[in-house]
Amino acid sequence: MKPYAEMSVEELQEELAQAKALYRKYQDMDLHLDMRRGVPCTEQLDLSMGMMDALDSNQDLRCDDGTDCRTYGVLGGIHEAKELIGDMMENNPDNILIFGNSSLNVMYDTVARAMTHGIMGNTPWCKLDSVKFLCPSPGYDRHFAITEYFGIEMITVPMTPTGPDMDIVEKLVAEDEAIKGIWCVPKYSNPQGISYSDETVRRFARLKPAAPDFRIFWDNAYGVHHLYDTNQDYLIEILAECKRAGNPDLVYKFASTSKITFPGSGIASMATSLNNLEDIRRQMRIQTIGHDKVNQLRHVRFFNDIYGLTEHMRKHADILRPKFEMVESILEENLGGLGIGTWTCPRGGYFISFDAMPGCAKKIVARAQKAGVKMTPAGATFPYGKDPSDSNIRIAPTYPPLEDLKTATKLFTVCVRICALQKLLEENGAA
Amino acid sequence: MKPYAEMSVEELQEELAQAKALYRKYQDMDLHLDMRRGVPCTEQLDLSMGMMDALDSNQDLRCDDGTDCRTYGVLGGIHEAKELIGDMMENNPDNILIFGNSSLNVMYDTVARAMTHGIMGNTPWCKLDSVKFLCPSPGYDRHFAITEYFGIEMITVPMTPTGPDMDIVEKLVAEDEAIKGIWCVPKYSNPQGISYSDETVRRFARLKPAAPDFRIFWDNAYGVHHLYDTNQDYLIEILAECKRAGNPDLVYKFASTSKITFPGSGIASMATSLNNLEDIRRQMRIQTIGHDKVNQLRHVRFFNDIYGLTEHMRKHADILRPKFEMVESILEENLGGLGIGTWTCPRGGYFISFDAMPGCAKKIVARAQKAGVKMTPAGATFPYGKDPSDSNIRIAPTYPPLEDLKTATKLFTVCVRICALQKLLEENGAA
Repeated sequence: MKPYAEMSVEELQEELAQAKALYRKYQDMDLHLDMRRGVPCTEQLDLSMGMMDALDSNQDLRCDDGTDCRTYGVLGGIHEAKELIGDMMENNPDNILIFGNSSLNVMYDTVARAMTHGIMGNTPWCKLDSVKFLCPSPGYDRHFAITEYFGIEMITVPMTPTGPDMDIVEKLVAEDEAIKGIWCVPKYSNPQGISYSDETVRRFARLKPAAPDFRIFWDNAYGVHHLYDTNQDYLIEILAECKRAGNPDLVYKFASTSKITFPGSGIASMATSLNNLEDIRRQMRIQTIGHDKVNQLRHVRFFNDIYGLTEHMRKHADILRPKFEMVESILEENLGGLGIGTWTCPRGGYFISFDAMPGCAKKIVARAQKAGVKMTPAGATFPYGKDPSDSNIRIAPTYPPLEDLKTATKLFTVCVRICALQKLLEENGAA
Repeated sequence: MKPYAEMSVEELQEELAQAKALYRKYQDMDLHLDMRRGVPCTEQLDLSMGMMDALDSNQDLRCDDGTDCRTYGVLGGIHEAKELIGDMMENNPDNILIFGNSSLNVMYDTVARAMTHGIMGNTPWCKLDSVKFLCPSPGYDRHFAITEYFGIEMITVPMTPTGPDMDIVEKLVAEDEAIKGIWCVPKYSNPQGISYSDETVRRFARLKPAAPDFRIFWDNAYGVHHLYDTNQDYLIEILAECKRAGNPDLVYKFASTSKITFPGSGIASMATSLNNLEDIRRQMRIQTIGHDKVNQLRHVRFFNDIYGLTEHMRKHADILRPKFEMVESILEENLGGLGIGTWTCPRGGYFISFDAMPGCAKKIVARAQKAGVKMTPAGATFPYGKDPSDSNIRIAPTYPPLEDLKTATKLFTVCVRICALQKLLEENGAA
């Protein structure tokens, strides 16, 4: 098929008629498909059912050090869990705090704490006239929701194939003391599936922020979420790199087992410097007596160690790989060479990012919805829900069964074609 | 034994010599006993081991309404859990939010939210020059720690046998718009084991606070924690009473299963008006995708219903009752009639409150500690850790085994006697 840009008005009209006919066929199918969120599918959840047997009434619910997990205490998490999560995060257990069921909640609390009490003795952000965050975009909508909720001004930074545009990041943080943080999903990013290059990570570790309380919010949500066994992205470990660069306190690193075991019933964690940990513990001990140690122990007994967890992630990959590959091949088959969209082919994570022709994203998503396929709202991947070029769409291929996903993706390509054709015809004055 | 106040100096000296000899005997026993915190004992924890079998890999982890508990979603808790906790809290499930593992965390978050975002459209507390809380005392040290952490000024309100002194409460909240809240443990209070009288609850529901964002923080931590099967305290349900009084939004009510199943691995909840719930949900949906539904389901399957939970609490009572009764009888036997201390005999909860002669509490606790018995620090039951009369001591009889508790309590009475005798001798110029 030749690129749409090279087609005559008659060819475009003919193509549109065909696409619309196809669209009506999908409408007749009465679809009810959901590709909105990056959630594991039922088969993936089934992988962790064994965790329900990891603890039973015949077991000793004590840790190796004798701690009874059934009662109060142990603010920062049991040692076994720190060790397991430390291996997962590539950090020393001493640098790790284990929290409750949600790393999003940990990030929220981290911002909230900075608002009311400040970071390491600095002025609480709520006492400042202006607080800003850098938001590499497209990015994760729930990150942006937190900063928006606290009235923090969000500054969009463009993503490149190697991570955020570091020239811009370096310049802004050095110039403006009101910039207190940056949201990062450094590996298999949401939504593009990009992993930050070595150079990007090194430049992050060497930032010279004007604000002493600037922190990198390093949400390594997909650190072990590979799609392939050997063809994997590698990310330089940021805490170690910051330490080497003489910036040990620069980063808060987050992770959880939400997409490893059960979302909502996993364990969340933060890795950071001992100085930052001490700062955080001062607040944590007012907020709670401790998090759910039984669930921590349950995770440890289920996985045993990092090898167990790695093998478990291979099973996730076996379920997800065909879904990603199928979406990519349908996109290629139906849109390849047309010049009306580009997309990513990540080697891990939960999303494929699609960029339509400028001004088309909202229309594509609306059109898909009208045929029964729900997608992440266009714009959601940008601060304030506003994609300046209205082109980015997040595709979440993990949840629907393979057959549904095939149908939904095919319909999606039809919607992309219709919207592109309409735009081109309008531009030709022939709409 | 005649009251110490009626003894001659010689008698006091003789008595002191005997008490000191007794004290040395305890010192020689090399005791290591801990009565600091209100934590369940191992036997109590064993009661809930069956909960570890309530879910296994052969079970369907779906709710009655089809919700898969293994994945994201359901911000406010699964319906089954709201029903069970609703029955426990005597509230409509619609008025209930289920949270994570700690009601303390829920209270902290509630104050934090008011600080940064205000309550129902009112000015965020962090923007105000002065924010104050009323603190009925003696009370719960972790409550006071939260308000202190946020720089909220704490005003001590005396406790009476029927609850906080309501004349003072009514006057202060009506006069001062800076007063935004009051901490209450309305049933089997911490540390006195007092349950608020009907009149007290009714007066609470009818408060006319100057501040529209004044809220009662009603921590009903011991709502079902009776020691006796029929000889139980009854508390008027505050939400219903507030509604009847035309003050539906006046109260946040908290509870948890921490001292029902496993502390740290239970479920926490709040009951409040629909207006308050809506206000809270606006923040919660930024903070988290949802709490641990698997653990909610685990609790529901373990208890089945409120009858199951009630029967379970009888087993707790069977373990705790002898401990409370033993402590009370040792206090009576060794201190009764001496006029040097008073104590409460609660019908539920986790504490006995002891009032020594003014100026003696710190010395008694220090002396007990020197003989190997750790008690809650004197003063902890008052704001800023400062008991103006230095007389209140919280006794936590639940954790130690019966024999240890007997020894510790006997030693405690010896310490009380020594400190009282020294004080009286000092007053007589004979120290």
